Formats: sequence, structure tokens, C-alpha cells
Amino acid sequence: MVGSKSSGLDIDLGNHCSALAYGWARRTFDTRRGLPGEPLAGLDGQFSNVMDFGGVRLALTSDGIGTKTEIAERVGVYNTLGFDLVAMVVDDLAANGIEPVNLTNILDVDRLDAEVVDALMQGLHDAAKVANVAVVGGEIAELGSRVGGWGDGMHFNWCAAALGILAPGRPAIDGSAMKPGDAVIALRSRGFRSNGFSLVRKVLEAQLGPSWHNEKYEDGRTWGEVALTPSIIYSPLVSHLRDRGFNLHGVSHITGGGVPDKFGRILKVNGLGAFLPNLFDPHPFMKHLQGLGQLPEEQVYRLWNMGNGMLLVVDPGDLAPVLMAIHETGYQAMPAGEITPDPVIRIMGKGAAPAELSYVRAPKA
Amino acid sequence: MVGSKSSGLDIDLGNHCSALAYGWARRTFDTRRGLPGEPLAGLDGQFSNVMDFGGVRLALTSDGIGTKTEIAERVGVYNTLGFDLVAMVVDDLAANGIEPVNLTNILDVDRLDAEVVDALMQGLHDAAKVANVAVVGGEIAELGSRVGGWGDGMHFNWCAAALGILAPGRPAIDGSAMKPGDAVIALRSRGFRSNGFSLVRKVLEAQLGPSWHNEKYEDGRTWGEVALTPSIIYSPLVSHLRDRGFNLHGVSHITGGGVPDKFGRILKVNGLGAFLPNLFDPHPFMKHLQGLGQLPEEQVYRLWNMGNGMLLVVDPGDLAPVLMAIHETGYQAMPAGEITPDPVIRIMGKGAAPAELSYVRAPKA
Repeated sequence: MVGSKSSGLDIDLGNHCSALAYGWARRTFDTRRGLPGEPLAGLDGQFSNVMDFGGVRLALTSDGIGTKTEIAERVGVYNTLGFDLVAMVVDDLAANGIEPVNLTNILDVDRLDAEVVDALMQGLHDAAKVANVAVVGGEIAELGSRVGGWGDGMHFNWCAAALGILAPGRPAIDGSAMKPGDAVIALRSRGFRSNGFSLVRKVLEAQLGPSWHNEKYEDGRTWGEVALTPSIIYSPLVSHLRDRGFNLHGVSHITGGGVPDKFGRILKVNGLGAFLPNLFDPHPFMKHLQGLGQLPEEQVYRLWNMGNGMLLVVDPGDLAPVLMAIHETGYQAMPAGEITPDPVIRIMGKGAAPAELSYVRAPKA
Repeated sequence: MVGSKSSGLDIDLGNHCSALAYGWARRTFDTRRGLPGEPLAGLDGQFSNVMDFGGVRLALTSDGIGTKTEIAERVGVYNTLGFDLVAMVVDDLAANGIEPVNLTNILDVDRLDAEVVDALMQGLHDAAKVANVAVVGGEIAELGSRVGGWGDGMHFNWCAAALGILAPGRPAIDGSAMKPGDAVIALRSRGFRSNGFSLVRKVLEAQLGPSWHNEKYEDGRTWGEVALTPSIIYSPLVSHLRDRGFNLHGVSHITGGGVPDKFGRILKVNGLGAFLPNLFDPHPFMKHLQGLGQLPEEQVYRLWNMGNGMLLVVDPGDLAPVLMAIHETGYQAMPAGEITPDPVIRIMGKGAAPAELSYVRAPKA
């Protein structure tokens, strides 16, 4: 539930702080015992808690887009970050089988630029339409020097909270239905989504200099444009598959920590592992960037999504029909591997230094 | 719905940006037509929208604590800001008659200090217990130089979203029940709550120097301690009065913009005004600060709560029993005046330069 968008510099401290926060939060749950908004058991420590409102089950989650904001400041394009913001929160809900419905956002700025605010909010609107969520609240806070950023324009940090509903009669998805032999389906990402940007920026600045965003990448776009590539929003696909009656045993939104951490989190519920020989290739620019920074294969799979923004786990018998159903929607999917009984995540790394990678899954909580 | 915690430097630009944001948000409402989470009409442009979930009516709102964080950094006390954060969001819900039930928060930091995070989250826990809300989600984002602040410690900005329920059979409170002759009740605040701190800091720095927070105020506390005074949380009182069966015609949470702006917002629904000869006196330290900065009476009532954190509007026949009911709870209340038919808010200012103040209410939307 409480996560940390770490810079990658001190994951342990980030996890420690998140645990402290969760410990205090957990002790507020009894305020709602037997009342509307009572947190239901079962998703403890996951992304979203499900609350009961007299039989209506809802979940609330919050997140921000981290330092991807700097890329928008560098490129001067502000109307795509909404896709990153919406994706970060609605896809965390979708990973628990919850259909996102409403969203509220907070924009912290140093000082206001109406044109930039307008572009940001247009992007939020566009993304909300894709995700089928209504933006029902918002706040713009002028915080002066408490908000910093790149260049001379308006600087900002942006976060949101999303409210979702667990459809009547449907179970939440928490990984407890997963078993050895289940099939893993990878959903293609479009780029870095909204995680791992501290490393992206560090490598690009070291290799291409302080104005790295204006340097050309090989496909004709600038590196700034490449890095800014907006996130795909997966939640409508998850809802669609559930509406079609498919039983998703597990759904993992690949954010900070990559496949090893984020998929590992749902694998540990039943003490399982996975063999993933067939994830999507990372995007060419990810490989290129990995090469520029001479980053070990093991590290990049732990920090970036490497081309796979969400993993679905289904019964092997459902693999073909689910792939077919996904194909019809236009999302790109791949049979990536299977669930194993051992607590290890094995990945055939397809980055700049291809290698078989083996991650010992974190112990059960 | 979309507000702006302005520095007071350019209210017009803040309002313009909020209007832009609301315009885009409004156009996402149709994504939920006939579906769970459909925004209901009636609170357009107010703090919270009410959404329908098959007869269960919920509202979601978000806000942050602005630059009050700097006061905690200066004083080195972090376990009271939770009261400010919770108050900002739950009392916006309460102002619409919505009972807050759940909360999620985002803490943006430059770098992590586990001790500070622990103190912040303890305060959030303590405040959540007072407000009867369960903290069901949270995120800590490490944003490096995108977050600034005072001194050498961890710098941070903190915001939250709160989910509330409109009890079955009860109307939302939007000011439409208010009529001339209704009684206005003021609820005493404890200090600046979480608004107007740009001006607080500006005056103190100009008069007492860069280490103003260590200077003694006349009651023995430092100016830093005075400024950090945590917010009272009013939502349990509003719920209590509604549970007792009292009909609240209007509720106004006095935040940025003070009584003229925030009370004006609900007065304009029916094109009304108010005569408020008997608001609580501002706190002595507010008057002292006003004197230090030689701030005009008219200005401080528009930027600070001046001792009154919430206003309630009731039928004149309910005035005495409501005051009695409030008295029993320990909250401090005062009969402050009455609703008038003219679009003017008249206040007997009791600050450092007492004067009768007259504010023309903003026109109907």
C-alpha cells in the first residue's frame, strides 16, 4: 500500500520509511470498524486497500509522476504527462482487479504559468477519457522555492489519487489464485512510463552533456522526446478481460523495482517464482541507453520496465483465448513464460548485454 | 472544486488557472454517465463533488498544507503537521455535509530522513484518529532538487486526498438552504491552520530577521512554535450536529481567502450577504503579527482566518440549541451574526486596527 518511488540510490531506506508509514496507517484502520469505509482484509501491504461501503467495495490509491516532470520542462511539451499520471494510479488499481472510476489531482508549482497549467490539464482530461475516469477534484498549490526544476519555466510536481470499484461478485486480485504452471502474459509498454528517470537523466547527462534532451536519437526524435514518451494505460484492458469473464490469477503493474520487485510482490503471496524466457524486447532506445551507461543487465531489469508495463497471470488453458481477446483490443501481448514453484524469478534478459538473469524473490511478509 | 492555495501575490492568476483546470475536469464527467462514480449535479464549483455508487453517495477531495512545512523545518517539530493535513481535506468534505472516512497521502521529499518521516506519519495517525478516518494509502516520492525548503534537514511537501460519504437520506450542504435572517455561528480556530503562511513568514522575517522562528513571542513560546500551532479538526463536530438532527443550512471552511472569499462562496449560491459583528477575536499573536507588518484590517481578514476556522449557518430558532450542543463537545462557538439579503459581507474587524469592513461578495457564477 505504501510505496516509495526511489531514486535507486537507497532502496533500503526507502523501504524502511514506507514500512514506518504503513505501520502508522495500519493503526488507523479500526476507526472505521463496522462503519462505511472499513478496510477489508486481504490486500495488506499491496498497492490498494479495499474498503466496504455497505456492500459496495471501493479502493483508493495515490501516486505521482516523480522526476519525469523534468523531461517535460526540457522538451517544453506538457500535454502528455497526464497519461503518465493517470497510468500510475489507475493501473495500480487495475492490478488488484479494481475498476478505476474517479480521480483527484494536486499540482504543486513554484509559480503559475497559465499556458503550462492548461496543457497539463488538457493531458489529464485526454488520459481520463481513455481510462474512463472522471476528474472530480483538484488543487493547484503555489509553493515558491519549495518546488524546483529545470530551466526558467514553471516548475511543478504532480500527483493524484484514484478511486475505484470492485465489481459486485468479483474477487479482488492479490496473487493468491496463482499456482505453478500458470501462464504469464506480458503487455508491451511504450517507454519508461513514469519510473527510473533518475537513472535515465544521469546516464544521458553524463554521456551527452547538460543539454542532452536536444541531442538526436537515431530515429530522428530528440532524446528528450524519446524520454517523454507517454505511458500506456492498461486499466481498460484489465476491465475488458474481466468483463469477458476471464479469470486473471494475478496482475502486476511494472513500476519502480521492475519485474523482479513488482512481479515478486504478488508471487510471494503463494511463495512462488517465475520463468520468463519470452518477455518483450526492451525498446531500442532503452538498450541504447543501457549501452551508453554501460549498465549491467541485472540492474536495468530491476529499475526499468524493459518493454513490459504489465504482467497478467492466467490458467494455461486460458492463455490462447486471453491473447486473442487482447489482440482484438489493440494492446500488444506476448506469452512470456510460466509460474514456477521455486522462489526465484528467472528472466532471459534481452537488453544491451543479453543474459539469463536470476532474482531471488523477497521472502514472504 | 478546483482551488488554489495562492501566495496572495496574484489571486487573479490563481483563479484563472483553477478555472482552466476545472474546465478540463468538467469535461471528463461524462465518462461515468450511468456508471458507478457518476458525479451528481449540485456542487459544481464547490470543494467536493458527490459521486453516486448505486445509491451510496461519496465525495473525494484533495489538498496540501502549503508552506506551513517550512515552520516545521524551522522548529524541528514534525508530529503536528498531520493535524493540518487532515484538517485541510476532511473539513472541506464536512463543509458539504460529507462525513470523511478514508484518506491517502503523498509525501514528496528531496531525500529521506527516517526519523522525520516517522514523526510526520505519527502525526497523521493521531489526526486520523481524531477525524475518524482510516489512512488506507500513501506514497513517499524522492524527488531530489525538485523539492526545496529551509535549513539542512529533509525538505518535503505533503498532500492528501480524502474520501467521504453522504449519509443516506441526508442532503449535501451547498448553501442553497440559506436565507436572510439565518444565524451564523463561528467556530474558534487555534491559529493560522494551513493558510496564509507566505504572509506570516514575510512579516516575521522582515521584522525579526532570518532566524525569526527562534525569537520569543510574549507568551514564552517562540514565534516558530506559535506559527506551528496545529489545526483544529471540525469534521467530527459537523457529523455530530447532523447526527443530532440539526439542520445546517450552510457550512464554510475558512481557508485561503478568509471569511470574505470562503463564506462568500456559499453565500453566492442564493445571492446573499452577511452581517458579522461578533466573530471571535483574532488570536493575540495574529493581532501582534498584523501590527508588526502594519497590515490593513481589510487585508488580514481576507488572508487569515482571524480566529474563526469554520462558520455554520442555521435557522435562528436552532441557534441556542446548536450552541448548547457544540458547547457540550468542547469546541468553542459564538453567535457571530446573521444572513442578509444584500450581496455584501460586513465584518466588525477586531484585529490590530479595528474597523467595520465591507466586502462585496463575488457575483454568482
